[in-house]
Amino acid sequence: MSGIWSSKIKLSLFGESHGKAIGITIDGFPSGVEIDMNFIKSELNRRKPGKDKFSTKRKEDDIPNIISGVFNGKSTGTPLTVIIENTSQHSKDYEKTKDFMRPGHADYSGFVKYKGFNDYRGGGHFSGRITAPIVFAGAIAKLALKKLNIDIFSVITQISNVKSENVKGKMLNSEIFKKISDNEFPVFEKEIMEDMKKAIIKASEAGNSVGGRVQCVAFNVPPGLGSPYFDSVEGKISNLAFSIPAVKGIEFGKGFDFASMLGSDANDQYYIKNNQIKTKTNNNGGIIGGITTGMPLDFSVVFKPTPSIFIEQDTVDIKEKKDKKLTIEGRHDPCIVKRALPVVEAIMAIAVLDLIENEYDGINWW
Amino acid sequence: MSGIWSSKIKLSLFGESHGKAIGITIDGFPSGVEIDMNFIKSELNRRKPGKDKFSTKRKEDDIPNIISGVFNGKSTGTPLTVIIENTSQHSKDYEKTKDFMRPGHADYSGFVKYKGFNDYRGGGHFSGRITAPIVFAGAIAKLALKKLNIDIFSVITQISNVKSENVKGKMLNSEIFKKISDNEFPVFEKEIMEDMKKAIIKASEAGNSVGGRVQCVAFNVPPGLGSPYFDSVEGKISNLAFSIPAVKGIEFGKGFDFASMLGSDANDQYYIKNNQIKTKTNNNGGIIGGITTGMPLDFSVVFKPTPSIFIEQDTVDIKEKKDKKLTIEGRHDPCIVKRALPVVEAIMAIAVLDLIENEYDGINWW
Amino acid sequence: MSGIWSSKIKLSLFGESHGKAIGITIDGFPSGVEIDMNFIKSELNRRKPGKDKFSTKRKEDDIPNIISGVFNGKSTGTPLTVIIENTSQHSKDYEKTKDFMRPGHADYSGFVKYKGFNDYRGGGHFSGRITAPIVFAGAIAKLALKKLNIDIFSVITQISNVKSENVKGKMLNSEIFKKISDNEFPVFEKEIMEDMKKAIIKASEAGNSVGGRVQCVAFNVPPGLGSPYFDSVEGKISNLAFSIPAVKGIEFGKGFDFASMLGSDANDQYYIKNNQIKTKTNNNGGIIGGITTGMPLDFSVVFKPTPSIFIEQDTVDIKEKKDKKLTIEGRHDPCIVKRALPVVEAIMAIAVLDLIENEYDGINWW
Amino acid sequence: MSGIWSSKIKLSLFGESHGKAIGITIDGFPSGVEIDMNFIKSELNRRKPGKDKFSTKRKEDDIPNIISGVFNGKSTGTPLTVIIENTSQHSKDYEKTKDFMRPGHADYSGFVKYKGFNDYRGGGHFSGRITAPIVFAGAIAKLALKKLNIDIFSVITQISNVKSENVKGKMLNSEIFKKISDNEFPVFEKEIMEDMKKAIIKASEAGNSVGGRVQCVAFNVPPGLGSPYFDSVEGKISNLAFSIPAVKGIEFGKGFDFASMLGSDANDQYYIKNNQIKTKTNNNGGIIGGITTGMPLDFSVVFKPTPSIFIEQDTVDIKEKKDKKLTIEGRHDPCIVKRALPVVEAIMAIAVLDLIENEYDGINWW
Repeated sequence: MSGIWSSKIKLSLFGESHGKAIGITIDGFPSGVEIDMNFIKSELNRRKPGKDKFSTKRKEDDIPNIISGVFNGKSTGTPLTVIIENTSQHSKDYEKTKDFMRPGHADYSGFVKYKGFNDYRGGGHFSGRITAPIVFAGAIAKLALKKLNIDIFSVITQISNVKSENVKGKMLNSEIFKKISDNEFPVFEKEIMEDMKKAIIKASEAGNSVGGRVQCVAFNVPPGLGSPYFDSVEGKISNLAFSIPAVKGIEFGKGFDFASMLGSDANDQYYIKNNQIKTKTNNNGGIIGGITTGMPLDFSVVFKPTPSIFIEQDTVDIKEKKDKKLTIEGRHDPCIVKRALPVVEAIMAIAVLDLIENEYDGINWW
Repeated sequence: MSGIWSSKIKLSLFGESHGKAIGITIDGFPSGVEIDMNFIKSELNRRKPGKDKFSTKRKEDDIPNIISGVFNGKSTGTPLTVIIENTSQHSKDYEKTKDFMRPGHADYSGFVKYKGFNDYRGGGHFSGRITAPIVFAGAIAKLALKKLNIDIFSVITQISNVKSENVKGKMLNSEIFKKISDNEFPVFEKEIMEDMKKAIIKASEAGNSVGGRVQCVAFNVPPGLGSPYFDSVEGKISNLAFSIPAVKGIEFGKGFDFASMLGSDANDQYYIKNNQIKTKTNNNGGIIGGITTGMPLDFSVVFKPTPSIFIEQDTVDIKEKKDKKLTIEGRHDPCIVKRALPVVEAIMAIAVLDLIENEYDGINWW
Repeated sequence: MSGIWSSKIKLSLFGESHGKAIGITIDGFPSGVEIDMNFIKSELNRRKPGKDKFSTKRKEDDIPNIISGVFNGKSTGTPLTVIIENTSQHSKDYEKTKDFMRPGHADYSGFVKYKGFNDYRGGGHFSGRITAPIVFAGAIAKLALKKLNIDIFSVITQISNVKSENVKGKMLNSEIFKKISDNEFPVFEKEIMEDMKKAIIKASEAGNSVGGRVQCVAFNVPPGLGSPYFDSVEGKISNLAFSIPAVKGIEFGKGFDFASMLGSDANDQYYIKNNQIKTKTNNNGGIIGGITTGMPLDFSVVFKPTPSIFIEQDTVDIKEKKDKKLTIEGRHDPCIVKRALPVVEAIMAIAVLDLIENEYDGINWW
Repeated sequence: MSGIWSSKIKLSLFGESHGKAIGITIDGFPSGVEIDMNFIKSELNRRKPGKDKFSTKRKEDDIPNIISGVFNGKSTGTPLTVIIENTSQHSKDYEKTKDFMRPGHADYSGFVKYKGFNDYRGGGHFSGRITAPIVFAGAIAKLALKKLNIDIFSVITQISNVKSENVKGKMLNSEIFKKISDNEFPVFEKEIMEDMKKAIIKASEAGNSVGGRVQCVAFNVPPGLGSPYFDSVEGKISNLAFSIPAVKGIEFGKGFDFASMLGSDANDQYYIKNNQIKTKTNNNGGIIGGITTGMPLDFSVVFKPTPSIFIEQDTVDIKEKKDKKLTIEGRHDPCIVKRALPVVEAIMAIAVLDLIENEYDGINWW
């Protein structure tokens, strides 16, 4: 069902926003990787709410409690489980409106699927809070990938109508990406960053919310990983990416811009340098035929605006089966794009580690 | 690896462009469905090349030969295998340039993955020809879905710079979709259709190629199908959609337009009519929290321009490890978007049938 | 890797014997099932050590702490996670012999697989203690199956050389099974039970251990569940059964006795009664062609003797790469068969629930 | 459903006994393996009926027609599909008794599962004939494993009441196994072999059938392959082994004999020789904790007697819902054990190749 992702690396995600705890089990993780708790906490902090005016004032201390799979500070190779206790719930906020299906949320589709038995408080299992364990999994995947010199970065490329210079498919430079991503609000152009912040604050003050776009790049991914058709790199990444609540689209390299390009511009032409085969452009985002080309992996995702807004909306009462007016209360993000960056990177890190674990065998069969 | 998709419905795809035959096995297909060969052939014909000036002159008579899983004209429920013989290969075309990595094709990434042992003729297993069996699988999925009154249609929404009125996320009407999709070149606006055709012919005459966009919609899909996180409807469909060679992006409902919307516009507000819960808009494309809402399922995909162009390109000779100039010869489509429509619909049909087979259990556990 | 079982029901098992906690996530469990904690605890108690002279004196209070997937006392349908804290570890027992590969244990094979990074204390992730979460999963599966009137029982059929009257493949009676299984040491014949107990005590007094056999039966399983070949009911159950440490063989119905039977005796002949089709015998254990027949599901498993014995054994020191003598200390079961009964039943319960969730769709496609 | 096995190596099996063709797709097979057709045909010949008086007189020329995945005589790494045409069907034999559920066959369980739509002729998809493609898959797996010096052999250890000296769990010698398995009727002791043949002929003359046992061993399998719990080597092999129609039990190493052993005899004690760690005995059949130990992999399976006998049996007419008498006609094996040897070896070969492809990664993460 919802919570198991099963490839060479396996993930098992669990928890509800207002339950005892949330967490994840990572199975198939290589043994012997040093589990740097400071790095993990810094990644979780990037996702944490309550740090500034762009996010909800709700405070969650996401303290990762590893209960299996680590011994003497290193991964054992057996299932690694972490739980994060829930501490900051205002569960009563949800009692009086529990039968009101919040527009844009999974209240209604979830009600049908689970026949009304799912935990409705704070979105329950559908809560964005469940992405904290995904960030944990991404953090340890990054720790492994660092051994192979693979770096993963993300930047914000759009907030509301404010768009960054489109870097989709350009020859990407890891130095520049690293530098930008060190910023708290990572955008390529400083002015545009300020305009993005303003757009968020404006929406927030109106009790409204905004969406945005994120681009994520992985450097030094080896060629030859993945498969055509049902095990394509694009399919693997997109399957994981749509696990992030609010993501409604994904594109690789030039993505939707390909529609208006000519073949002569779209094709990434090859050249050889120092006995290495490379492409002059990377319009395909490092993937052709579902397989990595050795160029940077590059995808973008779009986030819809946070559904929790403080403006009256039309909805229905699922028990009474009647139309109702609903005004949401509580503490909610006007824009989740910035907090989502480590989640997007986690998706990339998990996918790349899985690709590598799947493909490297070191056997010559012929 | 590449060819197995394994959910409640399972697919096993095989074949190379210039091998003996291509085909697919569909496992987990319900028993008792009447296998209407005329419908199946009409679907395969929609994908067939050589019919007009918008596609390659290569003629392939895609004759489906069902070798298992059908008995007395109905599906048996056991694995259903179809093979389609390859009859129109010009294999010698590929001999002299077999070491030249064609830009935009999977020649290089495939060479690395398969260590040079894969069949290079006509793209081998990477050939777009392998989508014919996917169309077959989609056709029989449609035959099953018709029993449940579920209809699937697709339209072209962009070719090169020519864009259709954007229907993404609008309240979609099955009558209109049905009428448009009956056209050979299904576009909502007749004039725009003519401009799209011109754009293809122009590129074709220049030895170049163009890309485009397709929107696909399924009507009457019940609510409550799918799961949050790793088994989301978006994840399932996108995983399948990226199995179509040349697809480089996917979006659901408003998709990338969500980035510039406000929450108050983006949220699909609920109302009740005849005891049925519906949304006033369908920006989310019929999916929230990874689960169907009962509104039309709606996604769009982008196709990159056909990589085979007749303009000289830079590349490398993989054996000699040297830079080379390459001019592709042979018979190639200037635009594959129109031929791809039944493939896109097949993805939708397979995904929806799988969702239904997964979820319907008829047991009340409480 | 080790901990994920992924069918319609999905399991994710984690924990090490001397880590913080052990546990399991059950995904795909139906929503709305009442989670009867008393029943769950009684099942865990059946597996608990330290109750009598037939098991280790180690005391473990296996308190199940459900941290997700249950709301208002009922299953939500979202991932259900339980953790059981480890409280009774004597970790120092293992320090001085940590490089000595204990014969019969997974010390050596695990060392090679995990490259020496796995937790060696008390067998780590290989510990029989990890079966407690499996019992939990079995308990909630039983709670669901009770709604469908499906009952699962197990009996001991052999301990050391003492064998019960062989009931394999006989027409099994649920009343008798229920009555026997209510005993603390469930054996069909009282005298044989006493002899079995004596065999355990004798081995225990000699610092040695004994193995045994268990038969498990499920009543009222509907016909038509499962598949031929790779998804056979036998394959599903056996895959799960070999997850129990120490199980080294499995047979269905008459099992290995089939080798010496004639076809005329082996075939289960049909008859019809009250419009229901039944077989006169149940030699096939309720499964033919990998599919249930509607007769009782019936399998037997063999347990090897507990590898932890108090007699000096030859082994190697994996660090020094030298032959060594090893005498195991600590608290260990002379026979784990009796404690394994709820684990074996859990396997059956999980498999049957999964089969039912997989097959029931209530759609007539023709 | 039935036909897909999905691990690192993936199998997709299809076909009915009296359909156009049967076949299999092997996906994830390594590229560059030379596909020796003579070896493949010799393996298929071992399974072929009609060669002697121990098998059915039905003649099937199992000619493997590879339609994808092989190029220039070597595996490409893309899905490898083979089809074998059906040529020797006497379909009319089945018309008049098609509603009579043959005891011991999957007629009834299959009827319920497929709602009566499955092909009943010759057992349809349930036919033992479907194991020919499994032998093909095993043959190419053996070709790959030979590169790694891994050999797989099988012997008959029981036919009816005639039992071979039990070699279960002994230190197995590859030279002896190789020599024995070269015989047409491979049994360790010549006299016992003759008695086995007599038992088959006796049953055959009485219109009856007999069962038996087979032991299969793989030499030179490296240690450290597999996983505890749900991905155990035992679980993987048993899941595949129960795909062989008529297999009703499996045991590893000493298997069911463990029940009556003492721990001190059952434990495989370690020693070191030439810096290699080995065990003095191999009671565990080369697997502890679900992981290979580096000792020979060793399992035994039991085959029930062929259900097709020429003696009148009681059954029901499924359409009329009435008791009936049935006397089976046609051409059937009195014992399928000998023909099953290459099928059993195929299971081992596929499992071992999959384990190796899963585990070897050549990366040191620490």
